[in-house]
This record gives sequence, structure tokens and C-alpha cells, in this order.
Amino acid sequence: MIHLSDKGVYLPPSPIRKLVPFAEAAKARGIKVYHLNIGQPDIETPREAIEAVRHIDDKVFEYTHSAGIESLRRKMVKYYASVGIEGLTHEDLLMTVGGSEAIFMAMTVCMNPGDEVLVPEPYYANYNGFAMEAGVNIKPIFSTIDNDFALPPMKEFERHITPRTRAILICNPNNPTGYLYSRAELELLRDIVKRHNLFLMCDEVYREFCYDGHKHLSVMNLDGIEENVVMIDSMSKRYSMCGIRLGALVSRNKEVIAAALNMAQARLSPPYLAQVAAEAALDAPASYFENVYNEYIARRNCIVEALNKIEGVYCPLPKGAFYATVKLPIDDSDRFSQWLLEEFSYEGQTVMLAPATGFYATMSLGQDQVRIAYVLKKEDLLAAAKCLEEALKVYPGRTI
Amino acid sequence: MIHLSDKGVYLPPSPIRKLVPFAEAAKARGIKVYHLNIGQPDIETPREAIEAVRHIDDKVFEYTHSAGIESLRRKMVKYYASVGIEGLTHEDLLMTVGGSEAIFMAMTVCMNPGDEVLVPEPYYANYNGFAMEAGVNIKPIFSTIDNDFALPPMKEFERHITPRTRAILICNPNNPTGYLYSRAELELLRDIVKRHNLFLMCDEVYREFCYDGHKHLSVMNLDGIEENVVMIDSMSKRYSMCGIRLGALVSRNKEVIAAALNMAQARLSPPYLAQVAAEAALDAPASYFENVYNEYIARRNCIVEALNKIEGVYCPLPKGAFYATVKLPIDDSDRFSQWLLEEFSYEGQTVMLAPATGFYATMSLGQDQVRIAYVLKKEDLLAAAKCLEEALKVYPGRTI
Repeated sequence: MIHLSDKGVYLPPSPIRKLVPFAEAAKARGIKVYHLNIGQPDIETPREAIEAVRHIDDKVFEYTHSAGIESLRRKMVKYYASVGIEGLTHEDLLMTVGGSEAIFMAMTVCMNPGDEVLVPEPYYANYNGFAMEAGVNIKPIFSTIDNDFALPPMKEFERHITPRTRAILICNPNNPTGYLYSRAELELLRDIVKRHNLFLMCDEVYREFCYDGHKHLSVMNLDGIEENVVMIDSMSKRYSMCGIRLGALVSRNKEVIAAALNMAQARLSPPYLAQVAAEAALDAPASYFENVYNEYIARRNCIVEALNKIEGVYCPLPKGAFYATVKLPIDDSDRFSQWLLEEFSYEGQTVMLAPATGFYATMSLGQDQVRIAYVLKKEDLLAAAKCLEEALKVYPGRTI
Repeated sequence: MIHLSDKGVYLPPSPIRKLVPFAEAAKARGIKVYHLNIGQPDIETPREAIEAVRHIDDKVFEYTHSAGIESLRRKMVKYYASVGIEGLTHEDLLMTVGGSEAIFMAMTVCMNPGDEVLVPEPYYANYNGFAMEAGVNIKPIFSTIDNDFALPPMKEFERHITPRTRAILICNPNNPTGYLYSRAELELLRDIVKRHNLFLMCDEVYREFCYDGHKHLSVMNLDGIEENVVMIDSMSKRYSMCGIRLGALVSRNKEVIAAALNMAQARLSPPYLAQVAAEAALDAPASYFENVYNEYIARRNCIVEALNKIEGVYCPLPKGAFYATVKLPIDDSDRFSQWLLEEFSYEGQTVMLAPATGFYATMSLGQDQVRIAYVLKKEDLLAAAKCLEEALKVYPGRTI
């Protein structure tokens, strides 16, 4: 018998993975499963991107520059200027294999093994995997559904800072909570980062999805910490093309970019066809986003209203992204989510949820919470909410 | 000032990167530069792959399964059977972001930080980057141009085995030497691996490129070490589509695949469009490979003959891949390569080489060697060889 590495053995599996066989079994029994568990939007990819791919006429699909095709990077700079992030050059960013690679690169380049990064919890579960691969430790800072997952107070961050603390990582707008950090909250983070000379890493892949007139403030626009800021970006959600795997790492810190480029060169090149799609997607007209935006607003309003009408359920109104972390009157969100797939159906239908336990690092948190993604059509969201309502009436582990 | 991690600072830059500005400057002066330094083939990508991409008709570019599209994996199984690797199922492999990700995954899953992997040197320089990212140490085992880079003797491997040794990594056929390991050599490795219970990782991305009737033996076909073997594969060179970034990690060890799948899930999915291209490329007719094979044989023969005619030059006859590590009568391959770009030209032309120092871990080795890639047309290879011949006549650091 040959032994695997501790990383190999202990790298956390996706929190939803263990539910997949139950969902497949439910479908095999003829039950319709509404997937509120995943962030795969059904919104169409911009026609410009699809047509660009369809009109490819290369003879050879060659490596691109390790940082990505220069014309694409220059176009990204214009895009950032159009959303108020000014003064960048194409040398301040690297195209990456999805936002995923950008996060892994940021952690590897900015932190030594054993260093600590503070992350408000609940947080995107895959941060755990990248942290483990980079050999760094996530220190969760508790945020609470009682104030809709606002930024934890400064003293909570400072209480967790040790000599090994090297960075703070946030996601804004937030997956899994849908919370959008305000200017005041971000300036508070800026002050902490400045005082303790930390990196501030921000995952801004849902930038376009801010609702109710709330404006997104990029960490790139926080004054006085230009060298400390690393921004993570992705084409996946903005253009509903998760499958192409293209993101970006952006920083005004030239040492960060140079070190990330070393990593980028080791893996040679980001995917070429994805870059073709992305460069064209950047030409998508304003009407594309208006339609997408209107669709998400309508979906959000419809699912949040439906959920909050259910007795014992509390769903904060998300100000951004397309997720909500929802409180349910249940004993154990893992058990409940499995039970929904294994034992429950309502008129031949059920719901797949993401147990919030997977988004908390602190044991026992999230047991009465689930994450939903409102990436389905309104009628499906309403049907899913109805299923959930009926399920909560009969779930044996109901708490109130 | 904020400090980067040691990994960020010390991750090795590509050995060729420092020459790139000199190549650009030479081109700016109107000099034609023959690129013998890179592994980007000019061979056409199979028409099937390009047409598949051109006929995409998705509405949404969605995430695929984290291990890759199942139909593609099943087709890979058939492909492996067609090259003599039998008995695999689609669950014995994961599609990866190039062979690069497969190497990184193999190192991370099979080794703990601080563990050691034995690699015959010279070796593919990017192994250094992945090892550093995984936190593992490469222990080079010297192979010599005096026997055309044959496998070092067993006692050399055993001499370097410590309690931290966890794996042996080879590339077969070899980049950068073009050497093809024989059955006897591979069985020797099998014996070592078995005796010391190590992983045997083999980068087989040049499998199709074996010449002169030599047959490729996959490590997957070594008896008695099924659980120990991890094979790294890639579409890049086989189908001349380096830019799509698609490879595979293959193992009969189910724990390895399960642990790698955890890593794969953290980064969500391999690139979708690449998988479309790859699935179609697997349908390329036998004539595609025959043409490619004939082209490479002709190129190899032409460049090797031309090089060996130059006084003081020795180029082993590569039995596989499309590289050769060549001995030159020079003092310092880094200096020579830079001089070629900066100070030399012959009839308005010069050559860009990869100094072999970048492929040796042991300091001071490779100073009289360069790697060439014969991925250019014959007439360009001959012109490049002529440049090299003229350059060696006048290079101030000539040694004999």
C-alpha cells in the first residue's frame, strides 16, 4: 500500500459533492429536482462570444502569452476604466484559468506556508482548497445573519491578527451571502490593512450584480493601500460563461504581478479559445447587461419574497451577486438537504440546496442555514420555494 | 513596503524568459530570428478539432464535470486502448488544464511538503515551478550526453533515496533530450519503485513521437506497480493544440484519482471549449499522424545531420519527442544564447536557443549544452544550423 500526501487526503471535497448521488437517485426515480444549490446561471452567453468562437480560423491553436493575449489585456483595462477602476495598464493584470487560479496565485504569491489569511465567514467553500494547496491557514471572522452578514466589527479582525497574519480576503458582492460591502466597511478594512501592513485580496467576480441602486466600490479604488491590494476577477458570471475558465489577477503591486507571472509561465498559457470568447464578450452591448440585471432583480425579488413568507424562514435581501444564505427552522442543514433528495417530494418535485455548513470554517455553524443560488427562471424558483415550504411542514427535524 | 512570500519571490522564472527582450530587440533591428528555443509546433491542428469549435451551438458555455466531460473521458479510454494501455475506465482519469495541471496535481496529491522526488536531469524546467508550488524538493539524478542521456544506473537512484523520497518522475520520450527509455530501463525503475514503495510519475505527452521503429512503453503497462503509477498526458503536442490547455491525469490508484478530484472540484472544471476541440481531435484519421510523423522524422534527420557536421558540435540522435540537447564548443550557454541575439547575425539572420543550464538543477551543468526544438520547417532548420555554424566560428567564448 502506498500512502497519499496529507494534502491529498485532507483536501476538502466540495460541500455539495456528497449530495450529488442522492440528486441523481431522485432523478432516476422520476422526481424533478430544482437546483438551488449551484452557481451555474441559465442566462445566455453573449452572442458576440459564441460567434467569435464559431468564426475561429486558425490553423494552429497556439500557446498565448503566459499573461494572456495582449489585446485582450488592453481591452480589460478599458473595461475596468468603464466601471471606474482607472489608471491601470495591461501590465497590471494577468489572465488566469478562471477566478480560481487567480485566488490560488494570490495566496501563493502573497503568503508563505503557515501564514494566515482572515476571511469573514460564511465564505466561498473553495477558498479552503486553494488555501490548503498554498499551505496557508484561513482564520474565519464570524459574520451573522442577524445583520444580514454585514462586515464584522474592526475589533473582531484585530483580535485575530497574529504575527503570521498576512492578508484579509473578502468576496464583494458576497458569495454565499449576497451581501454588498459599503464604502464605510471597505474603508474600515483599508485602515486595518494599512495599520498591520497586510494584503487585501478581494474577489469581485459579481461586480456587475449590485441591486437597488447600491454601487459597487472596488478595492482597487481604496486610497493609500495601492501596493496592498490584489483583485480577483472572472468572466464566468459576468458573461454567463463559467465553462470557458477565464479570470484575471489584478494588482498595482508590480512585485505581485511579476511573481504571479512566474507561476503563469510554469503553466505556460491561459486557455486560448476562452480568450477569444472573452475578448468578444467585452463587446457585448449595454442592453445585454440590462437584460441580465433585470432578470436577476426579478428573480431575487420573487425568491426572497416567497421564502420570507414561509413560517420560520428568514432570507436577508441580497444587495448583490445571485446568492442568499437563508435561515431555516431545521436541526441540521446537511441532513435536511439529503432528506429533501432522498425521502421527500411534492407533486413529483424536490429541491437541491447547498448546506451552509460547507461555507463556515467554524464547526457547528450554519446548521440552520442553506445557500441558495437564484439562477433559475422565476416559475422554477417559485416552484422550488413551494417545495421547500411543503418540505418544512413535514421534515422530522423541524425545530420550531 | 509589503513583502511577498518566499514562493512568490523564488519561484523560478522560465529559463528562456530572460532572453526574450534580446530576441525582441534583434527583431526590432530587422534581424530574422529562428526560434529553436520553443516547443510550439507549426504543425496544423487537426481539421476535426477546428471544425468542432466552429460548429459550437451552445446558448451557454457551462461548467463541465470537474473531471471533464464524461463522453470525452470514455473516448480517452478507447484512445488509450488503441495505443496498448488497456483495461482503463473513464473513472481512472481526470481531464486537466494542460499536462501542467496534471503534474501539479500529481505532486500535491502524492507528496507532502518537504518530500523528495527523484528526476533524471536534464529535465523539463517547469517541473521546478510545480515542485515549488507543491512544496516538494526535486533531487536530480545526473544523466549524461556521453550515452545520449540514457537512464542513470540503478545505484545512482538508490544512492539518492532518503526517508523523504516519495516518487520518481520521468518524461518519456524526454523533453529536453529526445531520449526514449527502453523496456529494460523502465523495468529497472519498476524494481526501484517496488522495493522502496515510491510513486512512479511519467510524463508521456510525446508518446506518439517515437522514431526508427522504437516502440513507446507506457508506465501504465509495467506489471506489479499498478497502484504506484501516475501518468501525465496532454493534447498539446499530439494534436498541435498547445493553446487549448487540456491534459489528463491517469492512474489505477483510486485514492490518487479521488484526491485529485478534490483538487479538480476546487477549480470547478477544465476548460469547456478545449474539451470540445479534444473530443473531435480524437477522431483525427491515421493519416494525420502519419503526416505529422513523417514531417518530424524528416526534420529530425535534417537538423541532427546538419548539427553533427559542425566542428565541435555533438547532437545525439533523438529517439522521440522533438527536442535534442546538443553539446556546443562554448564556455557558457546562457552567454552564447544572449550573444547570438545581441551581437551576432549572419546574412540578417540569427538563432534563439534554450540554454541547457535551465534544464539542470545541479549548478554549473549544461554550460556547454543547449536545447533545440525541431518544430520548424526543414528549410528554416537548415538556415538556423547554418547561422549556428557561422556563429561558432566567431563566438569569442569558443572553447575548442
